[in-house]
Amino acid sequence: MTIPEGDNLPRFVCVTCNTIHYQNPKIVTGTIPEWQDKILLCRRAIEPRYGLWTLPAGFMENQETTAQGAARETREETGLEVEIESLYALFNIPHISQVYLMFRARMHDLGFGPTAESLEVELFSEQEIPWEQLAFPVIKETLKRYFSDRKSGEFNLQVADITPAMRKKMDAPWNE
Amino acid sequence: MTIPEGDNLPRFVCVTCNTIHYQNPKIVTGTIPEWQDKILLCRRAIEPRYGLWTLPAGFMENQETTAQGAARETREETGLEVEIESLYALFNIPHISQVYLMFRARMHDLGFGPTAESLEVELFSEQEIPWEQLAFPVIKETLKRYFSDRKSGEFNLQVADITPAMRKKMDAPWNE
Repeated sequence: MTIPEGDNLPRFVCVTCNTIHYQNPKIVTGTIPEWQDKILLCRRAIEPRYGLWTLPAGFMENQETTAQGAARETREETGLEVEIESLYALFNIPHISQVYLMFRARMHDLGFGPTAESLEVELFSEQEIPWEQLAFPVIKETLKRYFSDRKSGEFNLQVADITPAMRKKMDAPWNE
Repeated sequence: MTIPEGDNLPRFVCVTCNTIHYQNPKIVTGTIPEWQDKILLCRRAIEPRYGLWTLPAGFMENQETTAQGAARETREETGLEVEIESLYALFNIPHISQVYLMFRARMHDLGFGPTAESLEVELFSEQEIPWEQLAFPVIKETLKRYFSDRKSGEFNLQVADITPAMRKKMDAPWNE
């Protein structure tokens, strides 16, 4: 690691060609697919957190918008084409340098099913959510806030930080 | 460029150590610093767009939140410590793989001035904004929407895309 001229942080600099490989936070973009009073979850067919439930989401790619990325990830993980409605939540996860952007999305049909990335894809009402088998704290936080807002009938943009303590708390049942 | 196993896009893969260097969109985070009916702009002391006016903003760094990054960039470019209020706008710029996050910010004092990154730092009322000398279309778009919302007295989250046509249109006066 070297601090380039005019910079104030160490960067990965290629010793052969001197290219600076900047390491910046990555955007994870995804959806809350809505069908009547239910939402769509996927059971992960890939690591990390194989076998646990999550909302469709993944790393945003170059040359797409956040909404396009969210729709693409939903297609890849559920087989379903959704209509992006509005940005619902921005979560900072500074200790792993990620920013999550979660959009509410409208489902027009039930053409979902298992994919290369999901063992199962299923609709859940609030009462059916597998709270103890969610893959990530950010997904638990998204769902908690979503169902709370739905009760009030008003969805407000959520901006919050996810801390390592939230992961620790979530893992506690398995660690005991 | 090689498509790694289980992936579907070409990536930069190091020929020596096989590390995959993923190239994902970068977040630019910044502020609209508010002082009474004025906002704070910086005249760029660095390329690109040297000498043109902009809002304080820059690339988010690892291990910080979007709000911390916005406050840091404001400090670096204006010398001022601001208080982050709320997320005002998310702009996708897919053709350069950037996502802008702009926060409204409260100024508690007038301790701003030129920095290594800004030739000048100054307060502007809406009537004084140098519309023809703004550095980037995304800044013009942010300011246009901000002053329009301020008239209505209600600031709503803005989510929009910036296209190459908007850059072309903005550059037109200089190209003619």
